[in-house]
Amino acid sequence: MRQVKVREILFGLLVVFAMCTAASQEALWSRPSLKSPEIHRDGSVTFRLYAPEANRVEVSGDFLMTGNPENQGAYVGEMTRNEDGVWEHTTPFALLSELYTYSFLVDGMRINDPSNAFVCRDVATLSSYFIIQGETGDLYSVADVPHGNIEKVWYASPSLNAVRRMSVYTPPGYRQGKDDYPVLYLLHGMGGDEEAWQTLGREAQILDNLIAAGKTRPMIVVMPNGNVSQQAAPGESSGGLAQPEFMLPRTMNGEMETSFMDIVTYVDSNYRTMQRKEGRAIAGLSMGGFHALHISKYYPELFDYVGLFSAAILPGGIGDDTLPIIYTDFEKKLAVQFLNAPKLYWIGIGREDFLYEVNKEFRTTLDGMGVKYVYRETEGGHTWRNWRIYLSAFVSSFFKELPGRDR
Amino acid sequence: MRQVKVREILFGLLVVFAMCTAASQEALWSRPSLKSPEIHRDGSVTFRLYAPEANRVEVSGDFLMTGNPENQGAYVGEMTRNEDGVWEHTTPFALLSELYTYSFLVDGMRINDPSNAFVCRDVATLSSYFIIQGETGDLYSVADVPHGNIEKVWYASPSLNAVRRMSVYTPPGYRQGKDDYPVLYLLHGMGGDEEAWQTLGREAQILDNLIAAGKTRPMIVVMPNGNVSQQAAPGESSGGLAQPEFMLPRTMNGEMETSFMDIVTYVDSNYRTMQRKEGRAIAGLSMGGFHALHISKYYPELFDYVGLFSAAILPGGIGDDTLPIIYTDFEKKLAVQFLNAPKLYWIGIGREDFLYEVNKEFRTTLDGMGVKYVYRETEGGHTWRNWRIYLSAFVSSFFKELPGRDR
Repeated sequence: MRQVKVREILFGLLVVFAMCTAASQEALWSRPSLKSPEIHRDGSVTFRLYAPEANRVEVSGDFLMTGNPENQGAYVGEMTRNEDGVWEHTTPFALLSELYTYSFLVDGMRINDPSNAFVCRDVATLSSYFIIQGETGDLYSVADVPHGNIEKVWYASPSLNAVRRMSVYTPPGYRQGKDDYPVLYLLHGMGGDEEAWQTLGREAQILDNLIAAGKTRPMIVVMPNGNVSQQAAPGESSGGLAQPEFMLPRTMNGEMETSFMDIVTYVDSNYRTMQRKEGRAIAGLSMGGFHALHISKYYPELFDYVGLFSAAILPGGIGDDTLPIIYTDFEKKLAVQFLNAPKLYWIGIGREDFLYEVNKEFRTTLDGMGVKYVYRETEGGHTWRNWRIYLSAFVSSFFKELPGRDR
Repeated sequence: MRQVKVREILFGLLVVFAMCTAASQEALWSRPSLKSPEIHRDGSVTFRLYAPEANRVEVSGDFLMTGNPENQGAYVGEMTRNEDGVWEHTTPFALLSELYTYSFLVDGMRINDPSNAFVCRDVATLSSYFIIQGETGDLYSVADVPHGNIEKVWYASPSLNAVRRMSVYTPPGYRQGKDDYPVLYLLHGMGGDEEAWQTLGREAQILDNLIAAGKTRPMIVVMPNGNVSQQAAPGESSGGLAQPEFMLPRTMNGEMETSFMDIVTYVDSNYRTMQRKEGRAIAGLSMGGFHALHISKYYPELFDYVGLFSAAILPGGIGDDTLPIIYTDFEKKLAVQFLNAPKLYWIGIGREDFLYEVNKEFRTTLDGMGVKYVYRETEGGHTWRNWRIYLSAFVSSFFKELPGRDR
């Protein structure tokens, strides 16, 4: 075999690569390679977009700036055009350490950043994202620590007559050891699915980092799909590539709650779990907080730790009257749950959250019952920023008294 | 607790949702909801984009049209603007059943489709995608059949002094049963990573569907990261959110090949595998084909099935001379491998592939040695379309004679 010309092959690969990514000759030769976002040492950020014929370009993101702790992240920055057709904007202040999402508005058209391969989906919307390192950003970043594994598994749900998908995080050391682990069931909000806590929720990064820091103990985290009309996240089921929808049928009508034992049964059968109350936690955001509230009182002996993150407190659900059992006798069932003495009942909400008032009423109810709970009030509203904070706080405050490895 | 106003809360959720996705008031009220892509019954497709002030908008995709089997998918369609600022284009012909990627060119700016939540990443480029159902498209779709699970696992690689990430597909029935399974090691190309075969490669869908149809037997598919300078895919390692790069150091210098037993050891220790030659296959695309070629001859007793998909045939690697052992004595090592009589040595390449000639020379070498192999030549070039076809053909032609369930 004759000497193969290495350089020719490598050049060929490069050309094929360039052709594929450019998708047309025109774009291939006209598009400069841009660095966007560029995070500066001082914490300010520069955004860049090649849009040679645009009239007006803005960058829009949920940024928190230094010296302005009250801002809620509705930042819009005007971009200016240079001679090469590249629009640019640098934030006038440093951004606080966080994970931020952003997009560009080009003459009224909203797009994500073509120079940034990192996007996350929230319901049907893709947004570009970046992280400002520091205390908070580091917690949401993949660090040089032992990592848990993520599994996307299909389980049978006889109650729903369906095969459904969930995400399962197993902590570092799970494969190598033989111990049983506690389990956190972590539920998403409306329009979300079994992917949500993995992407914008940064569940794996938060758990990896808190476990490595000794701030929580290793646990299994189960993230099911809370939309019983779905088998799985959009694109992952036999429903095909139908676009994700925010409001789905059968989400808060009792079916998720009354079929929940199918999930627990699968997890306890397929993972090394502590199969008792003090080894189980349940938490959820918004609609998932609603689910966690009702599931934990429907099965009062199942969970010792309950977390309601910006929970949609709807004592009566929103179903028709065909599945009422889960929602009847709200306070009576709560009383039974608290007679079973859960070790932690945790409520978190932002001061600007539109669900603030119903959460306040719920706390009044709990106070009237004379039961104990932990309450955390934060800045801001109904946002992933708050839900990441609540998850971090919640997992740092439970399972500690369980037997197991000292950390 | 007073009666909670369900409608108010639901309205609140909707408003928050709309605010989040729109990211600005302007976009919230000005952007119409568009259906794009819209796949018509006759197989033609309409694309839509809201870009009220754009001057020229094109849709660019890798489409194959009915009646034109020679076209290689460099389709560009002019979009026309209607009075609402929406640009639209309908393909003049039906598209053949396939998975297609596309993007929009707006006055020279390349973007993915803001109305389509389904994107896949190829190196640093995100493209929108859709599927035209039919024989080929169905094979790449999630169907109503039993599904395998996907695991993202971290394993120790002592040879590389690193902890690294891989994707593992376990077939339907794996969790429920006790059988040992054969394993396919499936390698990505340059610029790819452990996610590539899961996204554009449609590995899980192809395996689920072929297993359900009885066209291949249940197997474990292991998809490692072939870039030894990386721990994991971009964004999934402690390297942070550095943008993905096409050419990385140390990709074809022998380190992937000589550290490969770390992967096999992990898989054989953590999964129920048939730990023998007839239970192991290895295949890869482009650079991954190069890796599969060299790994399989370096360990001539390890694999009974070898697949080279558009392989970069570089007998000497591209490393410096510090790790030559893997690449020396090319033909001699090949001869040893064939003395060990692999059951299948499979080569696939497209007629337009820039690697066609080196593959032809390689076949001449094999012919000169008088060894047997299976050769599949297709239309087209160095594309995921071909690699999906090769994977489907390859897995349909091995492991059949192994003992196990009849299908």
